[in-house]
Amino acid sequence: MHPVVFNDTLEQVLNLIGTFVFAVSGALLAVRKNYDIVGMAVLAVITAIGGGVIRDLVIGAVPPAAFTDPIYLWLPLVATALTYFAHGQINRLNVSVLVFDAAGLAVFCIAGTAKALNYGLGSVSAAALGVVTAVGGGIIRDVLAREEPSVLSAKSEVYAIPAILGSAIVVFIPHLPVDNSLAAGFTAILVFTLRLLALRFGWKAPQAWRTTDKPNS
Amino acid sequence: MHPVVFNDTLEQVLNLIGTFVFAVSGALLAVRKNYDIVGMAVLAVITAIGGGVIRDLVIGAVPPAAFTDPIYLWLPLVATALTYFAHGQINRLNVSVLVFDAAGLAVFCIAGTAKALNYGLGSVSAAALGVVTAVGGGIIRDVLAREEPSVLSAKSEVYAIPAILGSAIVVFIPHLPVDNSLAAGFTAILVFTLRLLALRFGWKAPQAWRTTDKPNS
Amino acid sequence: MHPVVFNDTLEQVLNLIGTFVFAVSGALLAVRKNYDIVGMAVLAVITAIGGGVIRDLVIGAVPPAAFTDPIYLWLPLVATALTYFAHGQINRLNVSVLVFDAAGLAVFCIAGTAKALNYGLGSVSAAALGVVTAVGGGIIRDVLAREEPSVLSAKSEVYAIPAILGSAIVVFIPHLPVDNSLAAGFTAILVFTLRLLALRFGWKAPQAWRTTDKPNS
Repeated sequence: MHPVVFNDTLEQVLNLIGTFVFAVSGALLAVRKNYDIVGMAVLAVITAIGGGVIRDLVIGAVPPAAFTDPIYLWLPLVATALTYFAHGQINRLNVSVLVFDAAGLAVFCIAGTAKALNYGLGSVSAAALGVVTAVGGGIIRDVLAREEPSVLSAKSEVYAIPAILGSAIVVFIPHLPVDNSLAAGFTAILVFTLRLLALRFGWKAPQAWRTTDKPNS
Repeated sequence: MHPVVFNDTLEQVLNLIGTFVFAVSGALLAVRKNYDIVGMAVLAVITAIGGGVIRDLVIGAVPPAAFTDPIYLWLPLVATALTYFAHGQINRLNVSVLVFDAAGLAVFCIAGTAKALNYGLGSVSAAALGVVTAVGGGIIRDVLAREEPSVLSAKSEVYAIPAILGSAIVVFIPHLPVDNSLAAGFTAILVFTLRLLALRFGWKAPQAWRTTDKPNS
Repeated sequence: MHPVVFNDTLEQVLNLIGTFVFAVSGALLAVRKNYDIVGMAVLAVITAIGGGVIRDLVIGAVPPAAFTDPIYLWLPLVATALTYFAHGQINRLNVSVLVFDAAGLAVFCIAGTAKALNYGLGSVSAAALGVVTAVGGGIIRDVLAREEPSVLSAKSEVYAIPAILGSAIVVFIPHLPVDNSLAAGFTAILVFTLRLLALRFGWKAPQAWRTTDKPNS
């Protein structure tokens, strides 16, 4: 059905990995905030499926994918159970979680853009929805937990920018004389790599341009 | 239309009670935050209809029920007017409000699950949407008012868990050799009773498992 | 298509102005919160299109208008770029921004109500959705930026009330023996004027009625 996808099985596997690591990030935040196990499950599910649900509501794909295949609800619950017992160990694996999260970011922005294109949305809208798919769940997680959304913050390494770039590339792929799956796969690797490089070298996005005067308060 | 409901009139009455008490809880929070009457009305409406609107968008029941029957908008406005003048007295009736709220929780989780099943959603998704119907409005209320969502907090008595249990039971009812309406009614009473017992005995949900070591910070 | 609109070209122009000034208000808040350029763009887009997207999801107009005409995504990005360099000057133009914002409020509540009526919603629901169109984006902006939503606050000059009044008038227009476009235009001017008067004279909405006793805490 999707005109622009990488290999279906690979996409499915990466979608599941993305769902799982996003859920773990939600459950870990709940532990840090001293929420109870219900709070862990709520944040895990919302982080994992929030972006995709918004995308599906906007493009008219109802019920959203997260409500047609129960794996997308079970997986966050498994992630919650795991985090319940092993949050100490997971926190010590910090680097690995960030690597999985980068994989989730990469596949979610590309699969999200591809699905929106497939539903007939225009290039700009489809790319915007790819970004929403990738970062929407994390924004809702941070809002519910009353944290500054890390996508907005100037202190975080660039997170949305690789997703924006990846989504923008995906809308051009159908017009290029290349194998669509292969091109989408390479784009995913590009997003993944950019995110890891941003973490490694502390790349930040610029803040609004200030004159040499004192900033306006 | 609903294959799994208790008596239609009873469901309607309980839905209206649930709408009203949820609206009162929103308006009371607005008073406590020193919002103006517009803030009271906004929180009243959103608390009352928020969960059901999300459920209806997800299952494709548009316009959502809250926008097809004006009673679901008028009732929160009546609750706002009442709270505007009588918030002192209502606060002193604290226990009664919690009892009504427990009734709202019970009927919303069951009616929400039944409606989702009726729209063809699977068991897990339908149960999840029953919980969303019951607790979604309260979460949005707390987010708008910048309070810690009480569903997440380990300090609150269990609130979502009776709703989760009730929603889970409802998905089994069509497969049981019992009168559906009767079974749904008993489930509502179970949810209602569990919530009251949780309040009475201070039942809390567990937090993430900690080793005897110092917690990871 | 719309049975109740003012002149189509005028509506389009005002919609674009509303989108732009709402986007500027989101980007300016991001600057004040020291977010980076991604945070500016996110707040600009969400403030500009948030209310309309919720309205369109509720009435079943999917994809929402903001995702079918790319101007509604480009314009907030242009507003972001402008604010990036010129936020100091824009802040000094404070008065002008409030005037444009009042124009956005006026046209969004009227166009939102008209579109909801056009999709067959009842009077109360359509008026409610007109208000959502006008104030929804600003609420989401404030929630994401962890500010007290100014619509709720008793400290802000009345903002929602002119929109509520305007939306309520619009639902009566089709039943009046007047030119619909003309009546809608006058209603927009009324909303705009009321908002400016509220700002000029510091009109506030009332808070909940307190007895002479000490307030309940």
